[in-house]
Amino acid sequence: MGTGAAMDVEALRGRIRDVPDFPQPGILFRDITPLLADPAAFRRVVDLMAAPYAGIGTVVAIESRGFILGAPLAYALGAGLVPVRKLGRLPAETLREEYALEYGANTVEIHRDAMDAGERVVIVDDLLATGGTARAAANLVERLGGVIAGICVLAELTALRGRDLLADYDVRSLIEY
Amino acid sequence: MGTGAAMDVEALRGRIRDVPDFPQPGILFRDITPLLADPAAFRRVVDLMAAPYAGIGTVVAIESRGFILGAPLAYALGAGLVPVRKLGRLPAETLREEYALEYGANTVEIHRDAMDAGERVVIVDDLLATGGTARAAANLVERLGGVIAGICVLAELTALRGRDLLADYDVRSLIEY
Repeated sequence: MGTGAAMDVEALRGRIRDVPDFPQPGILFRDITPLLADPAAFRRVVDLMAAPYAGIGTVVAIESRGFILGAPLAYALGAGLVPVRKLGRLPAETLREEYALEYGANTVEIHRDAMDAGERVVIVDDLLATGGTARAAANLVERLGGVIAGICVLAELTALRGRDLLADYDVRSLIEY
Repeated sequence: MGTGAAMDVEALRGRIRDVPDFPQPGILFRDITPLLADPAAFRRVVDLMAAPYAGIGTVVAIESRGFILGAPLAYALGAGLVPVRKLGRLPAETLREEYALEYGANTVEIHRDAMDAGERVVIVDDLLATGGTARAAANLVERLGGVIAGICVLAELTALRGRDLLADYDVRSLIEY
């Protein structure tokens, strides 16, 4: 979009800024908002993340930054979108999973009627850290009978070894830290 | 997407389900998750919402269901995405606005460097109720010097007269209740 060649991954990495001590002292936060605000970078990220999943009918997106990537990924794939949300946000009957975060703990939910058994899905989030959130989302999908074709994130903090918790799945990240 | 003709607005309305007494007794919640999960309906909603805004460079999406519509709208338009988030979620320097909700009160933030002065934007959310959230987002955009080309929602609760609070803007909704 205004640049001659498609942006490569290093150019995309350059659109993510480091914010020290957020959300708490000692945490270096990878802020993707400059990337999102750049039309070419945003489009390129969605296209690169979507590429391996042609034919997948459902994208499961994790609240709330996962919505920002998962929703356009679903649109680009011609798929439906299923949200995994924080406790108390989904209005109908839900399944729940508790998990530990990099900083704190959390519970996520999915609607009981969110998908049919046997449905092939890709789980999308912005960041893979310890893998707790993605693992909880994967558990929810499997409790509904969904088949996880992959877990896809924009950025991965490899030192936190989130892939160890997700060893059963095909995990893809665009950018590693 | 599996259907011969594009879905019309009444077919889309049929994909929204009513959940009584959520999030509190007496509130009839319009649950868009069945619509999101339907690939043809999701795609159609994004395309219909995007249609009036060709050439707009920035979509401002309101956390968190606004992300689900605003992000694919930005992708479809070839625009960048700027999130308006709840208090404490954005890592860099922000501007804040407080506002009254249909049930409760809230504060939203935008990054100070989220856009250039003079930038034309569309503000996107899932629902227009009292208009407080959209008005707060509009105030944030204008404090940054942005120019609001429109405010666009999927569903509007007309009895709550949110448009009165947004009289300065071009407000579009796909579905009225």
